[in-house]
Amino acid sequence: MIAIEIPDGSPFGVDNLPYGVFSAARDAPRVGVRVGDSVVDLAAALGEEVFAAPTLNPFMAQGYDRWVRVREQVTALVAGDVPDGAVHAVRDVTLHLPIDVADYVDFYASEHHASNVGRLFRPDAEPLLPNWKHLPVGYHGRAGTVVVSGTDVVRPSGQRKAPTDTAPSFGPSVRLDIEAELGFVVGTGTPLNAPIPVDDFVRHVFGAVLLNDWSARDIQAWEYVPLGPNLGKSFATSISPWVVPILALEAARIPLPGQSDPEPLPYLRETGPWGLDVDLVVEWNGEEVSRPPYREMYWSPAQMLAHMTVNGASSRTGDLYGSGTISGPEKGQRGAFLELTWGGKEPITVKGEERSFLLDGDEVVITGTAPGAGGGRIGFGEVRGRILPAR
Amino acid sequence: MIAIEIPDGSPFGVDNLPYGVFSAARDAPRVGVRVGDSVVDLAAALGEEVFAAPTLNPFMAQGYDRWVRVREQVTALVAGDVPDGAVHAVRDVTLHLPIDVADYVDFYASEHHASNVGRLFRPDAEPLLPNWKHLPVGYHGRAGTVVVSGTDVVRPSGQRKAPTDTAPSFGPSVRLDIEAELGFVVGTGTPLNAPIPVDDFVRHVFGAVLLNDWSARDIQAWEYVPLGPNLGKSFATSISPWVVPILALEAARIPLPGQSDPEPLPYLRETGPWGLDVDLVVEWNGEEVSRPPYREMYWSPAQMLAHMTVNGASSRTGDLYGSGTISGPEKGQRGAFLELTWGGKEPITVKGEERSFLLDGDEVVITGTAPGAGGGRIGFGEVRGRILPAR
Repeated sequence: MIAIEIPDGSPFGVDNLPYGVFSAARDAPRVGVRVGDSVVDLAAALGEEVFAAPTLNPFMAQGYDRWVRVREQVTALVAGDVPDGAVHAVRDVTLHLPIDVADYVDFYASEHHASNVGRLFRPDAEPLLPNWKHLPVGYHGRAGTVVVSGTDVVRPSGQRKAPTDTAPSFGPSVRLDIEAELGFVVGTGTPLNAPIPVDDFVRHVFGAVLLNDWSARDIQAWEYVPLGPNLGKSFATSISPWVVPILALEAARIPLPGQSDPEPLPYLRETGPWGLDVDLVVEWNGEEVSRPPYREMYWSPAQMLAHMTVNGASSRTGDLYGSGTISGPEKGQRGAFLELTWGGKEPITVKGEERSFLLDGDEVVITGTAPGAGGGRIGFGEVRGRILPAR
Repeated sequence: MIAIEIPDGSPFGVDNLPYGVFSAARDAPRVGVRVGDSVVDLAAALGEEVFAAPTLNPFMAQGYDRWVRVREQVTALVAGDVPDGAVHAVRDVTLHLPIDVADYVDFYASEHHASNVGRLFRPDAEPLLPNWKHLPVGYHGRAGTVVVSGTDVVRPSGQRKAPTDTAPSFGPSVRLDIEAELGFVVGTGTPLNAPIPVDDFVRHVFGAVLLNDWSARDIQAWEYVPLGPNLGKSFATSISPWVVPILALEAARIPLPGQSDPEPLPYLRETGPWGLDVDLVVEWNGEEVSRPPYREMYWSPAQMLAHMTVNGASSRTGDLYGSGTISGPEKGQRGAFLELTWGGKEPITVKGEERSFLLDGDEVVITGTAPGAGGGRIGFGEVRGRILPAR
């Protein structure tokens, strides 16, 4: 038996305890909890088969009461001694996609982002469309191309047409971008025709991840009317390997910035607020270029879930939904390079070079932290991706 | 042993042999092939475990060569005597959703439909947007709400705002509609960054189904800018229980109506055409109201698949993609009531009543047939759905 050391100030203290899927040496992938710089093998430590699975889905499907109970068990476990064989150093394991993604929906919940994109894509119109403050606008993305942090992203090819071109051409995207987001993972779904009330968020959503919704702006701009983004986004969406339990985010809850004009329809009115005080940091080739503040988001994840199911749509264990790009009011808080460089017209300096969109070999790392119950900050880890040349 | 009788002119003759998933009495769902008015239990008849599964996915994942071989085996089987216990009357079995849907994408491949909808939704602009003839426009839908024919559809509620309203209101959709489509089922996918060439369609797509993309036009019209349809469609998509093998559709192949102005980019150019001469019939409460002709579709399913993966997006066994509403040039060939009644302004007579959109209790049945190799017509069966009142 060994005691797990937690370095002072670790973002993976006992008030975090995020879940992931790891493999050590030649063992099959299985569920682990991160504590400090260690991973606890839950199947070995708790002796339950549900944690020997290659995704979190079987455990998540057991429901809210189990999530609470297991969190208590793990808290007790890591406070004492843990069986030797159940503890691995994070640096010695491989981290895998933690969930089997059912449906993937991406929202558009930052007023600053939606306004910036509106100004860039539709310069002659009101930046915010009439529906935007009445409902959390979102669309379905490609569940099959959600990948775990560290997966390289091959530059996508596709059709692009600049406004000055007479016809579209085919080739590698030259406006490859990121979108820094949070993603929310549904633990237990609902059948058809059983909408999830906005206040039931905590009973259905298991946890949150960092999410990078890679976006080929040139492909997107040409294809997106009238049915929304498709190929401009569907090539890859990266998520962080550690799923931070919603139960760990109680101390991060804050009011939303404001929804008084207009007031949302009753099905979107929260009793307790689910604004979240999560700070993201975007690094481009190792240089910090932005600090997107989640607290600025107009719509809460509880409102997104209520909206997504209000028409009777069912939801499933493993459903993943993104917040949409997180952008604050300041330039240095924008979560997409499209906004940060104003459509490429105002390049920024990265490692001494003028840059607008992603070049081959570039690496983007998004990290995030939030207030934890212990008075310090808990971490989301990172979502990392490097651009490989088009094939 | 018994010989299976096939009634004269049956759309389920030996040149069809569609696959589905059925259960008899209290047995677990398993794979069957429809022959005449019978279902052959493939696990029982061929003694292979892959057919004892509750979806076609394990069999589809075995790949093209196996699809060819099993079709030969089944053809030989039904030409002779089949073990008694392996044959059920269709009327005695329950039919289930035949596939575990991975990602669901819906295209918009009918020029007549896209033009009609453009005129209705954007009356002051060109009906066809500039990208439409350059690429098959499509979007991701909700895989989790794909249901099998016969599943009742509860009228969805959501936000609607008529142009004359000052603010949106919440309530049951009052413009509930259908979209008569074909759906294509991916049998074997591809990893990331391995686009499927347009001519490899037949090696990746296992079969086709009838698809009804139920659409709440009032919800859709309010929500769809700028990211496309979401709640207006995500409550239900119905498919027929029988998956007609692409191998059975060779005799239905025809040229596309024309793609010379503009010519598609090289990655969309087919060597052999995958236009399909499938005739659909739409019945509303038992009265035929439309005959959508698939031969009029601008983009082929092979082009849709090539486009969907050209950016490096992976594809998976069980991916489903819809053609989009099938509408021909004539009024009686329109595959959505939105078009058939011109936005509700030109009601049609159904069973003696003036009707525009769906009322509670209405039932819609879409059937389809195509030329078969035997000189007659093969059938897709039907996709049926009844509207229940909003909850």
